[in-house]
Amino acid sequence: MAKQERAVRTRNALIESAAELFDRDGFELASLSTISARAGVSSGALHFHFSSKAALADAVGQEAAQRLDRITQQQADGALQMLIDATHALIRTLEDDVVLRAGFDLSDSLEHVRAEAGLRRTWQEWVEDVLVRADGEGSLARGPSVRDAATAVVAVTAGLESLGRQDARWLSHTPLTRFWRLLLPRLAESSSLDTLVASGTGAGLR
Amino acid sequence: MAKQERAVRTRNALIESAAELFDRDGFELASLSTISARAGVSSGALHFHFSSKAALADAVGQEAAQRLDRITQQQADGALQMLIDATHALIRTLEDDVVLRAGFDLSDSLEHVRAEAGLRRTWQEWVEDVLVRADGEGSLARGPSVRDAATAVVAVTAGLESLGRQDARWLSHTPLTRFWRLLLPRLAESSSLDTLVASGTGAGLR
Repeated sequence: MAKQERAVRTRNALIESAAELFDRDGFELASLSTISARAGVSSGALHFHFSSKAALADAVGQEAAQRLDRITQQQADGALQMLIDATHALIRTLEDDVVLRAGFDLSDSLEHVRAEAGLRRTWQEWVEDVLVRADGEGSLARGPSVRDAATAVVAVTAGLESLGRQDARWLSHTPLTRFWRLLLPRLAESSSLDTLVASGTGAGLR
Repeated sequence: MAKQERAVRTRNALIESAAELFDRDGFELASLSTISARAGVSSGALHFHFSSKAALADAVGQEAAQRLDRITQQQADGALQMLIDATHALIRTLEDDVVLRAGFDLSDSLEHVRAEAGLRRTWQEWVEDVLVRADGEGSLARGPSVRDAATAVVAVTAGLESLGRQDARWLSHTPLTRFWRLLLPRLAESSSLDTLVASGTGAGLR
């Protein structure tokens, strides 16, 4: 294995291990020695890649931001279906992917440290954008405001994430499908309603 | 001041102080000596009232459960308005009341310790019950299922609570009003729609 490839692998293992310990113990309590041990590398190697715990947290945040980008860049038939699919992909990924989960947590709890880390804000802005696009495509019903819908979607996804930390059933397909089944007849223009799939089309990230 | 009255005051001060420290530092990190110091009592007095940190957490949970009861027992004109009002009262109280906030947190994080502490479950069951009652009163539209609506309401309130920990604007009146404004035309029977107030009637807990 080339030296550079090994370095990339070590770096990724440290990011994964840091995310696990941030997720389990929180940023404050996670120790660098446990992070390096869990990644199977020496503490010297950790310090070669990351100068501090904050630098590791940044790297977790950046990796999480890339994963969130992959979720929001999945294509679907129309902006509204894209939003439905992305919420399902987000909730499913939060269940499986400790880096994304830790990234959201860090983005909440270290907001005072690094304003640009805001995964939460990225998600929120994307939800609003895609709803504006859906409106432009003529697939939103007249009546509900884009802002009201964005607020509801952001609150529901944050709620499922928070409830899911104690009870994984909230991260299953069902609660989110219930939400969309409830909301779509109000939100979607009636002619597009038949083609929308509240449970997600499952394109892309599966 | 009578001896008994003084004991009740000391006990309440300890519950309030414990809630503050559980909320700030989490159950694991909160120290009994800081709790008693903040309550202005000796550690002997703390141990007279509570045999352990777990006993204090129980007392916080019980006090929080009583406060949640007061929120859900407010009367309003019809079960659906009662639900709207209770969600507003819950979110407003979570912002101001550290005991209720700590009670929800403990109910999440100590669920393995004491199953009966489930404030979260109490809230969930109440939301379902009151929606069943609204349905019985004929004030729900045909179409949406009670279960779907309960899931959405529980997820949204949990989401606002979670988002509000980082940014208090989520606990203001507006986001929840947006949610109800979006949802009511779908959820409420059309003849009752005009009388429902998405921002809450503000009866009771103000």
